[in-house]
Amino acid sequence: MYDRMQTFTDEELNRIHDASMDLLKTVGVRFDDDEAIGLFKSNGFDVDAKTVFITEKDIRRTLDTAPSHFKLVARDPAKSVAIGGNDYALAPGYGASFISTSGGLQREATLADYQKFCQLVQTSKVINVNGFLMVAPWDLPSETAHLDMLYANIVFCDKPFMGSPVSREAARDCIDMLTIVRGSKEALKETPVTASLITPLSPFRYTSEMAGSIIELAQHNQACIFGALIMAGSSGPLSLAGLIAQQTAEVLAGVALTQVVNPGAPVIIGGTSAVMDMRTGCLAMGSPEVPKLTSATIQMAKFYDLPARAGGSVTDALLPDAQAGIESTLTLMTAIRNGTNFVLHAAGILGSYSAMSFEKYIIDEELCRMVIETIKPINITAESIDLNFIKEVGIGGDYLTHSKTLAQCRSALFLPDLANRQGYAGWQEAGSRTVNEKASEVLAERLSAYEKPDIDSQLETDLLTFIRKRKNQQ
Amino acid sequence: MYDRMQTFTDEELNRIHDASMDLLKTVGVRFDDDEAIGLFKSNGFDVDAKTVFITEKDIRRTLDTAPSHFKLVARDPAKSVAIGGNDYALAPGYGASFISTSGGLQREATLADYQKFCQLVQTSKVINVNGFLMVAPWDLPSETAHLDMLYANIVFCDKPFMGSPVSREAARDCIDMLTIVRGSKEALKETPVTASLITPLSPFRYTSEMAGSIIELAQHNQACIFGALIMAGSSGPLSLAGLIAQQTAEVLAGVALTQVVNPGAPVIIGGTSAVMDMRTGCLAMGSPEVPKLTSATIQMAKFYDLPARAGGSVTDALLPDAQAGIESTLTLMTAIRNGTNFVLHAAGILGSYSAMSFEKYIIDEELCRMVIETIKPINITAESIDLNFIKEVGIGGDYLTHSKTLAQCRSALFLPDLANRQGYAGWQEAGSRTVNEKASEVLAERLSAYEKPDIDSQLETDLLTFIRKRKNQQ
Repeated sequence: MYDRMQTFTDEELNRIHDASMDLLKTVGVRFDDDEAIGLFKSNGFDVDAKTVFITEKDIRRTLDTAPSHFKLVARDPAKSVAIGGNDYALAPGYGASFISTSGGLQREATLADYQKFCQLVQTSKVINVNGFLMVAPWDLPSETAHLDMLYANIVFCDKPFMGSPVSREAARDCIDMLTIVRGSKEALKETPVTASLITPLSPFRYTSEMAGSIIELAQHNQACIFGALIMAGSSGPLSLAGLIAQQTAEVLAGVALTQVVNPGAPVIIGGTSAVMDMRTGCLAMGSPEVPKLTSATIQMAKFYDLPARAGGSVTDALLPDAQAGIESTLTLMTAIRNGTNFVLHAAGILGSYSAMSFEKYIIDEELCRMVIETIKPINITAESIDLNFIKEVGIGGDYLTHSKTLAQCRSALFLPDLANRQGYAGWQEAGSRTVNEKASEVLAERLSAYEKPDIDSQLETDLLTFIRKRKNQQ
Repeated sequence: MYDRMQTFTDEELNRIHDASMDLLKTVGVRFDDDEAIGLFKSNGFDVDAKTVFITEKDIRRTLDTAPSHFKLVARDPAKSVAIGGNDYALAPGYGASFISTSGGLQREATLADYQKFCQLVQTSKVINVNGFLMVAPWDLPSETAHLDMLYANIVFCDKPFMGSPVSREAARDCIDMLTIVRGSKEALKETPVTASLITPLSPFRYTSEMAGSIIELAQHNQACIFGALIMAGSSGPLSLAGLIAQQTAEVLAGVALTQVVNPGAPVIIGGTSAVMDMRTGCLAMGSPEVPKLTSATIQMAKFYDLPARAGGSVTDALLPDAQAGIESTLTLMTAIRNGTNFVLHAAGILGSYSAMSFEKYIIDEELCRMVIETIKPINITAESIDLNFIKEVGIGGDYLTHSKTLAQCRSALFLPDLANRQGYAGWQEAGSRTVNEKASEVLAERLSAYEKPDIDSQLETDLLTFIRKRKNQQ
């Protein structure tokens, strides 16, 4: 259809690709991990100290083995999620340190908050992948917090989830816990059950934590989500064209490592690069450059025929207000409509990733449902048009009282959980509630209706034993 | 590009077209106006009492003469706006009776409110067509209120504006006032200077007010915007496929009248059809069916090669909260991205058209600017990628302090007027303002900076004399 949003021409796609290849070959990418450097070397890559110079031939080899689509298998297999092609996964916000409460006030997040988000994902009609580090629990020692978060992911929810790539040890712990869940390393290697977020340190670096996690995850056939978060004007050029070239290079370098570790290891590529606000020096996630970069990012992933990661209900607003609604919708709508396969930050995030809000999580779920409804096709058939019905009602007629309307009225249209659809009088009578107040009510209902999904008690015990052991080693 | 939103196939487009033709021929459309009926008859249409049965041949003849694009000439010719093709016009909200104030409280609107909206449009960076009936002024007699509104449109603002089609007399007054502005009837007929909203009374009727206005406006070469507002489940079928067929038929019938009145008269076709909430019985403008219908509406307008009217920052929320932000963005983004040529309700509207909010107007202007930024292409050239710059900064380097970044930082990126981009501490220090509070501040600045555009004093006197005369006739 006619589209005012830019579709890259083949020439433009190739120009970005060529620029990325040039950068990979001449600037190279630094991996702060000896094993990674050794693996690159032994696979014939050009290495100088910790910098890997990657040729187009290396990238072609990488793309030959990286899969275009795969499945994240859930503890409840019926909740497994396909990644790639026309499919898409929606995961909650990631990496927030604070909980945003009423009026935008922030407090430190706790494990209890994290567990609540797991419960919300479990009871969600729309979020189909549980997150990791949705909030960082301040009440736990940071060295072992990942163990408690992973445990909550596994036990409170039976959907697929994101792994812990915060350090190589944390990635290994994740693999060990997944091994307990799947029964054996061999069973785990059979299919990805987690996807973990790997963020390059732009420009052109992977820290030891990230490089180590990539090795650990790829070895065990777990998915790595490469998400560059370049700030135009700070960790990348102000020019979005240059930024996309840099992002593509950084991300493909990470994919290259997964494929030397384990050819065929699943990956998702993209990012949520954004701009720096030149007045405040802050990350501006809600800027209109973000949906633009989202579209560019997805087009590059499709150019390489790899699953795309982009978008999310991202915003710089510090509370769920009109700004949050506008910014979140612009980027989420673009991400889902344009073909993202993995949408991180689909619900709950505020303040340029600084905070999660339970109310915004509930509001964003409705936003996700709305976007999904928007992209559902209208069935255009003789039956669905139903000319005889329209003729029967005729000029000046009324559809409302017709039996066909009554028969279809409960199923034909989208029903919101939150959105006000009362007129002024009805709304006032019902207490003039804001959407945030309604979200609080839905939140309470959801949490009180939550039921822990069935789990083998031995599995729970084994996981707890493992966690106790690991904590004692610290 | 890959697009998860439905693109109608040729078969689907033709199926909708065929269904519309069937409805026009067998159900027909009622025009409650003898002159309209007479014109149809004398032009060979099949007429029975007040119902016109329209054949595909009639429609083809209509489409042969209706123009694909035209220009709305402004009082300041530099502010003229092209309608059709790749161009688009953005006009404020329309038809509200109330002003929404703090917390969603509503009060009756006044002429002073109307004049303020004219001042806001005049000072707008983004709204390029002034509205009509942005709010209905309760402090004026309804029979002559259109005269005061049109006067405000002409005098407070020198952009193109919307005419008054509330009755045939009001349309004629509009033509008379435009004649005063343009100097003569002949000068007026040379080019459209207004576009007026014509809404069929669904299903399949044009009231005497609408039919009379069409005749008056088309005779004088002023644009008619045909905007069906069918409520699925009430004035149209629940099935969106049936609804689109009905909408297409209703709208084309109106276009047919313009072309029998004056072949070549400018039209814009489409609508903002929506659904009825089956629980409250209220119009649900913010539902996700609306962006879907928006996309369908635009595709049908493009099928007929006529300028498309769809979308707007529409919502059912009664105050500018997250719901308003989400709903407004979903439909506005779809409308602009998918190719609407005339976006009514681009700013200010709340509560399913019941109220206008000054704060939402300011917020929506920023939304419009964001959407427009989102659809600006990224220039992908060797120069814009600037490989040497990225190579120079290199691994782990910093772009921020580079002279190129400093040179570009003021012009390269979008700068919001409202959106918070401060971190938590800075935001608190600056008073923890919500986006609505910021909008209030911008509103006050805008109104105090407003300057009445130059106008010939004789023209003002002539308009006032005309208005006095017309009021005395009531």
